[in-house]
Amino acid sequence: MRKTTILYLLFIAVANCFAQNDPTQYVNPFTGTQDMGHTFPGATVPFGMVQLSPDTDTILFYKNGEYNKDVYRYCAGYQYEDSTIVGFSHTHFNGTGHSDLGDFLIIPFKGEPKLNPGTSAQPEKGYRSRYSKNTESASPGYYAVVLDDYKVKAELTATTHVGVHQYTFEPGARRKILLDLFHGIYNYDGKVVWSSIRLENDTLITGYRQTQGWARDRKLFFAMSFSEKIMDYRLVNQKPEAYKGFWRKFDKIERIPECSGKKLKAWFQFKPAIKPIHLSPKDLRTGKEPPPRIGPPLKVKVAISAVSANGAIKNLQQETPHWNFEAYKEDAREKWNQELRKISITATEKVKSNFYTAMYHAFMSPVVYEDVDGQYRGLDQRIHQSEGFTNYTIFSLWDTFRALHPLLTIMQPQRTSDMVNSMLAHQQQSVHDMLPIWSHYSNENWCMTGYHAASVISDAIVKNIPGIDIDTALHAMKHTAWYPKYDQNQIYRIRGYVPYDDGPYSVTKTLEYSYDDWAIFQVAQLAKQEKLARALRVRADNYKNMFDQETGLMRPKMHDKTWVKDFDPLATHGMGFIEGNAYTYSLFVPHDIMGLAFLKGGDEALANHLDTLFTMPLPEEKYADTEDITSAGIIGNYIHGNEPGHHVPYMYNYVGRPWKTEHIVRRINKEMYRATPDGLCGNDDCGQMSAWYIFSALGFYPVTPGTNQYVLGSPNIEKAKINLKNGKTFEIEVKNQSPANIYVQKVLLNGKEWPKLFITHQMIIEGGKLTFFMSDRPNKNRGQQYGDRPYSLSAMH
Amino acid sequence: MRKTTILYLLFIAVANCFAQNDPTQYVNPFTGTQDMGHTFPGATVPFGMVQLSPDTDTILFYKNGEYNKDVYRYCAGYQYEDSTIVGFSHTHFNGTGHSDLGDFLIIPFKGEPKLNPGTSAQPEKGYRSRYSKNTESASPGYYAVVLDDYKVKAELTATTHVGVHQYTFEPGARRKILLDLFHGIYNYDGKVVWSSIRLENDTLITGYRQTQGWARDRKLFFAMSFSEKIMDYRLVNQKPEAYKGFWRKFDKIERIPECSGKKLKAWFQFKPAIKPIHLSPKDLRTGKEPPPRIGPPLKVKVAISAVSANGAIKNLQQETPHWNFEAYKEDAREKWNQELRKISITATEKVKSNFYTAMYHAFMSPVVYEDVDGQYRGLDQRIHQSEGFTNYTIFSLWDTFRALHPLLTIMQPQRTSDMVNSMLAHQQQSVHDMLPIWSHYSNENWCMTGYHAASVISDAIVKNIPGIDIDTALHAMKHTAWYPKYDQNQIYRIRGYVPYDDGPYSVTKTLEYSYDDWAIFQVAQLAKQEKLARALRVRADNYKNMFDQETGLMRPKMHDKTWVKDFDPLATHGMGFIEGNAYTYSLFVPHDIMGLAFLKGGDEALANHLDTLFTMPLPEEKYADTEDITSAGIIGNYIHGNEPGHHVPYMYNYVGRPWKTEHIVRRINKEMYRATPDGLCGNDDCGQMSAWYIFSALGFYPVTPGTNQYVLGSPNIEKAKINLKNGKTFEIEVKNQSPANIYVQKVLLNGKEWPKLFITHQMIIEGGKLTFFMSDRPNKNRGQQYGDRPYSLSAMH
Repeated sequence: MRKTTILYLLFIAVANCFAQNDPTQYVNPFTGTQDMGHTFPGATVPFGMVQLSPDTDTILFYKNGEYNKDVYRYCAGYQYEDSTIVGFSHTHFNGTGHSDLGDFLIIPFKGEPKLNPGTSAQPEKGYRSRYSKNTESASPGYYAVVLDDYKVKAELTATTHVGVHQYTFEPGARRKILLDLFHGIYNYDGKVVWSSIRLENDTLITGYRQTQGWARDRKLFFAMSFSEKIMDYRLVNQKPEAYKGFWRKFDKIERIPECSGKKLKAWFQFKPAIKPIHLSPKDLRTGKEPPPRIGPPLKVKVAISAVSANGAIKNLQQETPHWNFEAYKEDAREKWNQELRKISITATEKVKSNFYTAMYHAFMSPVVYEDVDGQYRGLDQRIHQSEGFTNYTIFSLWDTFRALHPLLTIMQPQRTSDMVNSMLAHQQQSVHDMLPIWSHYSNENWCMTGYHAASVISDAIVKNIPGIDIDTALHAMKHTAWYPKYDQNQIYRIRGYVPYDDGPYSVTKTLEYSYDDWAIFQVAQLAKQEKLARALRVRADNYKNMFDQETGLMRPKMHDKTWVKDFDPLATHGMGFIEGNAYTYSLFVPHDIMGLAFLKGGDEALANHLDTLFTMPLPEEKYADTEDITSAGIIGNYIHGNEPGHHVPYMYNYVGRPWKTEHIVRRINKEMYRATPDGLCGNDDCGQMSAWYIFSALGFYPVTPGTNQYVLGSPNIEKAKINLKNGKTFEIEVKNQSPANIYVQKVLLNGKEWPKLFITHQMIIEGGKLTFFMSDRPNKNRGQQYGDRPYSLSAMH
Repeated sequence: MRKTTILYLLFIAVANCFAQNDPTQYVNPFTGTQDMGHTFPGATVPFGMVQLSPDTDTILFYKNGEYNKDVYRYCAGYQYEDSTIVGFSHTHFNGTGHSDLGDFLIIPFKGEPKLNPGTSAQPEKGYRSRYSKNTESASPGYYAVVLDDYKVKAELTATTHVGVHQYTFEPGARRKILLDLFHGIYNYDGKVVWSSIRLENDTLITGYRQTQGWARDRKLFFAMSFSEKIMDYRLVNQKPEAYKGFWRKFDKIERIPECSGKKLKAWFQFKPAIKPIHLSPKDLRTGKEPPPRIGPPLKVKVAISAVSANGAIKNLQQETPHWNFEAYKEDAREKWNQELRKISITATEKVKSNFYTAMYHAFMSPVVYEDVDGQYRGLDQRIHQSEGFTNYTIFSLWDTFRALHPLLTIMQPQRTSDMVNSMLAHQQQSVHDMLPIWSHYSNENWCMTGYHAASVISDAIVKNIPGIDIDTALHAMKHTAWYPKYDQNQIYRIRGYVPYDDGPYSVTKTLEYSYDDWAIFQVAQLAKQEKLARALRVRADNYKNMFDQETGLMRPKMHDKTWVKDFDPLATHGMGFIEGNAYTYSLFVPHDIMGLAFLKGGDEALANHLDTLFTMPLPEEKYADTEDITSAGIIGNYIHGNEPGHHVPYMYNYVGRPWKTEHIVRRINKEMYRATPDGLCGNDDCGQMSAWYIFSALGFYPVTPGTNQYVLGSPNIEKAKINLKNGKTFEIEVKNQSPANIYVQKVLLNGKEWPKLFITHQMIIEGGKLTFFMSDRPNKNRGQQYGDRPYSLSAMH
């Protein structure tokens, strides 16, 4: 062979290898950015604190005392079909159903500074810019767009604590950067309690925002470094205070280097985007015009810290020591690849795209919430040093206890340990002595019901995640479950249920507390705290107090123990439930599905309930009030776009009908996930929707976090290899995979027939191979032995 | 002698000794609490961060956009003649002419909680209480009063960082404590930007206030510890935010242990003030009623910190480890005695009372502004560690550069060094690269004119105060003097004067910059920075640009170098001056009084100007607008109640007429200082008024800080002994002292005749004795030799 041929073949080999090792290519960050997915397309690294992303509107949450429902579409700041970009802000939730954040918005511009964002109808009235979809692109850790109004190519990438911007202006443009400290997601006039900007020197500015939103007392600091010297600037307070004091001396000078208040805007000007060209003597003679030449792009690095401006500067210095944008971009991509390579799959392109996009979304949050030196702002608003763990925030636990955290126990054992320890620190810093409900940047925002940190911690302990002190954990869980002031917990504890006439969501609360109490019970047993275990064992049965034999459903009960009158089992709100109706919540007993079946009159009755759920018509008015349920996510009365039913498709296994699980899981996987902007049928909810897909694609699902079991379903991949942290691998091979072959005929574990309908966490962690044999016809003989079914509370005791 | 007699004599001896060593007995903390002294009567320790004192009204600074002039009377929160007490707050300025502070107001009460303060006309409508003057008492470090409405004896004492309260209720009272985080001095609706309360456990609460007032970004944290367990409590947000989020879950429960917002009040209830009495069997038989018995008083310790709640807890733990109120009170008294004993005097009772009260007020501020571990919040709002110095704040430099800081160079060399280093740290943390103008709790409030930190630092360096790096100091002073955006400094630098048509106070600014530049020039010379020294030497002459030969006065000049038309040399405002008129300011050239005399046409002309000043009638309408000038403080056109003229009485020495200085100084000392509530003729101004008295009582005064000279006057004591830090003493003896013998006949230094009209700092520091011989007739032969007069700039170069 000739040398060039050899080189060529080598190149092909490397390229192939590279393609195989670059799963980021399958990720579409725009997935879920349309309608109700509430994802963002911008740049972030796995579990990174910075999510640097375009915001496409500025709808106010409150205006004149009225709640504006339209704001809900902008939970992540972005809607795919919008035609203007307000700017790029540094913090975004992935897929939440309520919101906050959007800190430190920046936009490059030229021309006269405009200090207000303008509107989508009249973008020219403000600093926002139009853009064309065809100039927009995104990949993990990178986002790019051309801002038409300013003819600027904007590129974004990120490290854990730093957003890195690169702005390429057209030649000769007088380059300016606008900074808006008032802008925010779910913003309203009054949300910014105080903010501050300070020019430290001619390339560095610092500042902070304190906001009163979903997080009641949220402080975020920044350090912003420019690649070029600031030539001119203005700091403007658009809402001056009644009392100015002797600061009025500076009233007419906006070029003073510090400013504080409630509505701060600033702009910074840099040298024009052109290099001076020295014409040759000949050029001068001939009068030749030099071609315009573009200078180096303007770059901005913005580090954030919840601790202090000093903390932000430390983060800036440590994570972004140079100005090579491409290198940061490559680093970010490589960080994603390191995470995505933890599962390599063989599957159709569509499945690959769905799968890696789901992994991308699943590995975004919770986020690292400490500075590079381990300092973090605790729930008590004081500065703490994380000792022996990395501190995390954004625990949307009502969503994520279901599948996201169980997924992390397999894929991210170290982070799981860190997250559990972050929750324990939260409990220690809580004046309520409580574990997080929804932990958000040193705040508890009390969103949704239950105390599902108990589920996450119990699951981690049962699965032997290292670095968790079981006594500390049990103490924290116990104090949480016994805190009387939390959400009718006292009356729940005294009566064994939350009365309907005592407060909202009474059935949901009772069922969720009951499950959470069971989760704590698991740990109390492991810790050999028998008295506590007995008390919790009783509480774990409290779900039974909600079961109405007459309707066969969970039903709201009054103080006087009578059932609620005019019971509407399809209502998702106002009937003792939240974000789900009685048909769905009647199946929320993940810890005792056999007990539930017993209540209902046996396996047949529970199976019938499941069949009814997936087939009954659900009138649209029954879910119209629930913002993030769209008809695309509905099968009968089963709503995949929201969480309360996520375990339900797998419940057929508990009543010996695995083929029904297989059928419905494949249908959901096929119909409700697409790696396209409109590809999510509900909020991603901090990765829960994505985690459901990952598990289901692999063929199993954690119906009962707090056990070590994963219940089998029907994988839609051909092969998968899970590369575990301990160096072992767990492989999944699917024989006869095809769109029609959705039914599992047989399962082998390490080559030997595996008759059970579940596998355990230990099996995965020890490494091995699970082989599914698929067919287009159900095998109704699998899992018919009682011992083959997943455990439940009753079976265990 | 019998043993008891010996013991008795011993007791008398000890008691005498104790009385001699207890100069606090001469201090009346009520001095200046009436009208315009703006002092407070409460408890503080020397240079302590806590000033725990009663506030007697709640007048708002702004209401409906209007400035309320009445607020000026409440700069220290207290007016002697008021009949109600709103409560006790923890921070107060001593004698300022603008205000802020009043943090963390507490009042004990019984009965139904009232969350608003009520009015002085209708105290029963709010939580405030009436009180009788005859129950009120105060001594250094201690304040006591009976709150009539609640029948509570309130006693206060303090450590550097902690206010200690002791409340004795009547028997059986249900004891409660109210905490108001909205209350403040110079308060207005909107001043509290954010605040927070948190119950850490059943005896400890923490929290903070962030305010926007004189200090634009002020944060103060507290840790409040009760001597008994909290039995019940409420935390109330009186101004709930538009957006409550999921906190609405707690809406109906005010007993949740944390609260944040803009208008927070709280109350805490304790066991009734009675011990349970176990009746004897006999008592039970006879049916005897037990007498009510008072339990131990309720005590509260409130530590403050500008760093964090953790910092406040550290301060609390380190400074107040026990609950013995009497011990804290004695500690505070002893701390004051240690300071007051530094000068022991023999004098009339009236003079002693004035003298020690003046020392008490002079040693209150600047205040220690760091936690017990040396952490402090810098001007950059970041947390710093003081390395090698103690950090101070409250530098009211336009007032205190004149006599207070020079006094501290003698009496407090270590604190002077610390204060200078605090100013240098301020400069390093300043985005303006400037030394403090008015340093106030991590803020620059830009109050008044000049950059007199230069004077203080120069004075300290010239006097060899240890621990000051001269290069760092010179760098800081130079950057301050060259900062173009400060108060017409740029045009001053370019033109040599501030034009009248460029901004207010043009003459005052020119004269003060000119003096401050001379002060920096002194240091530049010592540092051998000749180029800089030459530039400053030129600037030091800039005062000459304001001198109008026609009127013989300093007169505002326009951009075009013409003098202002319609010149009113008696106007104190609007004519190029601030808080003084042309007659007074024409004498503000402390660094070149001989040069000034030359401009005016010689010694005679200057002497005539002085004579005129002290004798001309000043129509009341000329000073009616200047809030803190009262007729009690006026001699002719000389206004002792405000600072610009404080050096003027001593200027006769520079023109060889020392007897005129002696006469006027004795008159001021006699007429304008009384240790009574109405005993100050103007604001104490952070001790400047008091420092003037101390110097003048001792017989000398620092006319020109930045030189090592003190100009002689006429002492009103008989003997004084200054106990210096170096172990030496400087004694002053006054022969033939009497109210009539106000003229100095002769002065001996260490027994030898001292012909000069000044002494030097070195003479004092080296120890020795100065003997004045007094008479009722002036000695017009003293100081007639040219070399006998104090130096001035011209004489030196």
